Amino acid sequence: MATASVINGELAAGKSASELNTGRFTAVYSEVQTSRIDHDLPLPSVLKGSFKIVDGPPSSAAGNPGEIAKLFPCLFGQPSAQLLPCREPVVSEKKLKIGVVLSGGQAPGGHNVICGIYDYLQDRAKGSTVYGFRGGPAGVMKCKYVELTSEYIYPYRNQGGFDMICSGRDKIETPEQFKQAEEAVIKLDLDGLVVIGGDDSNTNACLLAENFRKKNMKTRVIGCPKTIDGDLKCKEVPASFGFDTACKIYAEMIGNVMVDARSTGKYYHFVRLMGRAASHITLECALQTHPNITVIGEEVQTLIAELNEILARGVVDEAGLWKKKLTGQSFMLFELLPQAIQEQLMLERDPHGNVQVAKIETEKMLIQMVETELEKRRQEGIYKDYFKGQSHFFGYEGRCGLPSNFDASYCYALGYGAGALLHEGKTGLISSVGNLAAPVSEWTVGGTALTALMDVERRHGKFKPVIKKAMVELDGAPFKKFASMRNEWALENHYVSPGPVQFVGQSSDAVNHTLLLELGA
Amino acid sequence: MATASVINGELAAGKSASELNTGRFTAVYSEVQTSRIDHDLPLPSVLKGSFKIVDGPPSSAAGNPGEIAKLFPCLFGQPSAQLLPCREPVVSEKKLKIGVVLSGGQAPGGHNVICGIYDYLQDRAKGSTVYGFRGGPAGVMKCKYVELTSEYIYPYRNQGGFDMICSGRDKIETPEQFKQAEEAVIKLDLDGLVVIGGDDSNTNACLLAENFRKKNMKTRVIGCPKTIDGDLKCKEVPASFGFDTACKIYAEMIGNVMVDARSTGKYYHFVRLMGRAASHITLECALQTHPNITVIGEEVQTLIAELNEILARGVVDEAGLWKKKLTGQSFMLFELLPQAIQEQLMLERDPHGNVQVAKIETEKMLIQMVETELEKRRQEGIYKDYFKGQSHFFGYEGRCGLPSNFDASYCYALGYGAGALLHEGKTGLISSVGNLAAPVSEWTVGGTALTALMDVERRHGKFKPVIKKAMVELDGAPFKKFASMRNEWALENHYVSPGPVQFVGQSSDAVNHTLLLELGA
Repeated sequence: MATASVINGELAAGKSASELNTGRFTAVYSEVQTSRIDHDLPLPSVLKGSFKIVDGPPSSAAGNPGEIAKLFPCLFGQPSAQLLPCREPVVSEKKLKIGVVLSGGQAPGGHNVICGIYDYLQDRAKGSTVYGFRGGPAGVMKCKYVELTSEYIYPYRNQGGFDMICSGRDKIETPEQFKQAEEAVIKLDLDGLVVIGGDDSNTNACLLAENFRKKNMKTRVIGCPKTIDGDLKCKEVPASFGFDTACKIYAEMIGNVMVDARSTGKYYHFVRLMGRAASHITLECALQTHPNITVIGEEVQTLIAELNEILARGVVDEAGLWKKKLTGQSFMLFELLPQAIQEQLMLERDPHGNVQVAKIETEKMLIQMVETELEKRRQEGIYKDYFKGQSHFFGYEGRCGLPSNFDASYCYALGYGAGALLHEGKTGLISSVGNLAAPVSEWTVGGTALTALMDVERRHGKFKPVIKKAMVELDGAPFKKFASMRNEWALENHYVSPGPVQFVGQSSDAVNHTLLLELGA
Repeated sequence: MATASVINGELAAGKSASELNTGRFTAVYSEVQTSRIDHDLPLPSVLKGSFKIVDGPPSSAAGNPGEIAKLFPCLFGQPSAQLLPCREPVVSEKKLKIGVVLSGGQAPGGHNVICGIYDYLQDRAKGSTVYGFRGGPAGVMKCKYVELTSEYIYPYRNQGGFDMICSGRDKIETPEQFKQAEEAVIKLDLDGLVVIGGDDSNTNACLLAENFRKKNMKTRVIGCPKTIDGDLKCKEVPASFGFDTACKIYAEMIGNVMVDARSTGKYYHFVRLMGRAASHITLECALQTHPNITVIGEEVQTLIAELNEILARGVVDEAGLWKKKLTGQSFMLFELLPQAIQEQLMLERDPHGNVQVAKIETEKMLIQMVETELEKRRQEGIYKDYFKGQSHFFGYEGRCGLPSNFDASYCYALGYGAGALLHEGKTGLISSVGNLAAPVSEWTVGGTALTALMDVERRHGKFKPVIKKAMVELDGAPFKKFASMRNEWALENHYVSPGPVQFVGQSSDAVNHTLLLELGA
């Protein structure tokens, strides 16, 4: 067993880093990292006192409940659960053995989910054991784990990254892999497993829960919503963790570039942000910084959907008459695109026939488009200025930053709540912390039936359960706010520079715009 | 005249930005920006009370004093000046008219230099006037300016960027241009001009000072050391402003990427940082973050110097026999480089015949080199793992960030001191704030003869005065510290993640490693 201890802030170069011996490596911590370790995490009031867990009404599914019921015969329809304060101290003598796994790409706050689970068990089920599966779901299948102790997790409190137990992108899919997972949880005698991941990982968590239940195994499974993309959310799960911090880091960079642009006027800056189909990050960063022009992927989805329709019917003629089938706005948008991008949209499809949007270096494409247009105007004698584009891609810098106060508290509550749900014997739920626009003390805590978030997709002739990715809603409050302001931002200078994430002071507890607007706060 | 006023923190999207009407545009400020405006700037003790300005001994030059004396007949040899506390209040009734110009690339803190000048005049020469020349030296030549008032400068206090009056890269070089500058300062009846810039701009400042003095004009000229590159420094001017903040921003990003790398092990990350010949930024970031491998340009200068020598003699044969003229280590290094880079080193030269090092995308080059080497080893059967490189370039994000507490205070003292020097009638000095490893109250303030920093270079058959760029000294304390630790960093995990710049709390006043090590602190 690895142990950890703080070697009393021994000074490294420049008197600003202290060494922490985690047993596996000597971690050198910056002053800010060190100051974060002992950051006092507020808990929602309900988690501070005595609480009882109250079930809601039976649940259904996000779509095709009949199919979901067939796929999850044991779990379908189970109620969501809510933690409510109660007078009598609920004392359970039950000690638990819990496993935890990080799945998929990093998001700031993952360590705090684990700390939350651990602290719940320390506080409410003394003598329990927590195992961290190493390297993601592969760690579950290979039963590669480490026992987590106070000393072990201490250096990771409020720290970014997933390096406490690391993550991975493997999936537990085949019957053999399910068998391996079963063997692992039996070997460790687990009462519960917490899966910290995105939409796919939480679908996987639900399949595991169903499987364990079907086989009358005692192991319960609880999911936690993680992804900087912000596309795992619904009414009961208002946010995925990591989104807040990542957006704040990207917005810091964008704001700095804006000040740069305003100081010289030498370049036009084009910024692309990490992410896949959903544009929540871009929308949030736009709300934080007010760029002149923002392209929200969901707005161009119409064109792509129309193209998909046309291509599926196979009526693309060389003369381009097929373009008449596009609606007015889509036609204009398509004609605006450089030929290379037009061809990419028409030809380069993934195995599902979808456009591979994330592979397009939009920032460079746009610079090229503007150059072409201005050159045309120059030839016509109507443009005499000079244009110089500078491209930026912000991605990896944001996934592993120190969690903002919001993400630190949110994750801690998610983990603490997950512990409570497992202690109560719940399974197939996703840890759900709500009322997030209010002060932490007023946050609600509970669990939502994972089956309630599911729909089915037909793949290879079979129905597969999926938690639908939440896309930017063009009639949702964040987009509408953006849409109401963007014309002004385009013409006048409204740049905002959010500056670096602060951990102390007035602005340090600020919640992102998307969440506030979605919650109507 | 533009005026500015704060429109009472009216709330924009998400309740986190307030609007500031600067008269020219409505600036929307983030909470952090707003909180910085009223940040209380400490002044060195000597600037708080009564002080007198004491001259030191006559100065010489950094090299070729005979030539410098010929180029600066009026100014050469003049002493540096030091501000010393004194008992009797020195009351000067003299009101001043001062112009200020920002020259070259942005560096965090430039606005505070201007605020420092302004506040000095408010405090000690009430009724004085400050003009900001717009858009850099071109603004001086075209006499394009704005009168700076309390209201005008207020929103820029402690803010990043140069957008208060903007900057530019023009130079005042030809006799016609000097004439234009003369006309501008005569038109505005200037007692003084403060040039905020890098090595070239300060050389230019000294030429202006000499020219004004020669013509018996009353206008004095004081320089201020600005550049994120950190290559304008000497004993009396221990740092250029902006370096501290820029390095901290880059180090934040590098630290985040390190945590990312540690969490998955999926990529090897290769980071290139902004800058030109000098590698102070890279060295400082290495000291802050402990990467596995750091390439310091000055270590490979030997190869480039040898290539320059060989090319100057024009003895490059197709067969490659010329390579035998390289020393052993340079030959090995050259052979290691991919052919494209070899060709770039041999062929692509700037007008002075120098290699355009900054144009080499080192991060991509290194990934390519590693791929080539590992593929070779794979063929030989001695490498079976997989390598995936991810490249990053951090540049524009760092030039316009909110100044760190250090840069904010340092710049304010530089400006305040420049005001005092002009009030005393000094010219041809660069504002010099020293003892920077101590608390701000103990900082020393004065001015160093610009001629003392100069050497000559022969260009087009003439001697030109130059302030030599300070390169990373391979026997200096920062490099030696780095060299003593890098082997350990290469083999073990010593990553440090500095986190975002904090403006409040213990770590917020931390000074960069380079400065601390150079000052022996």
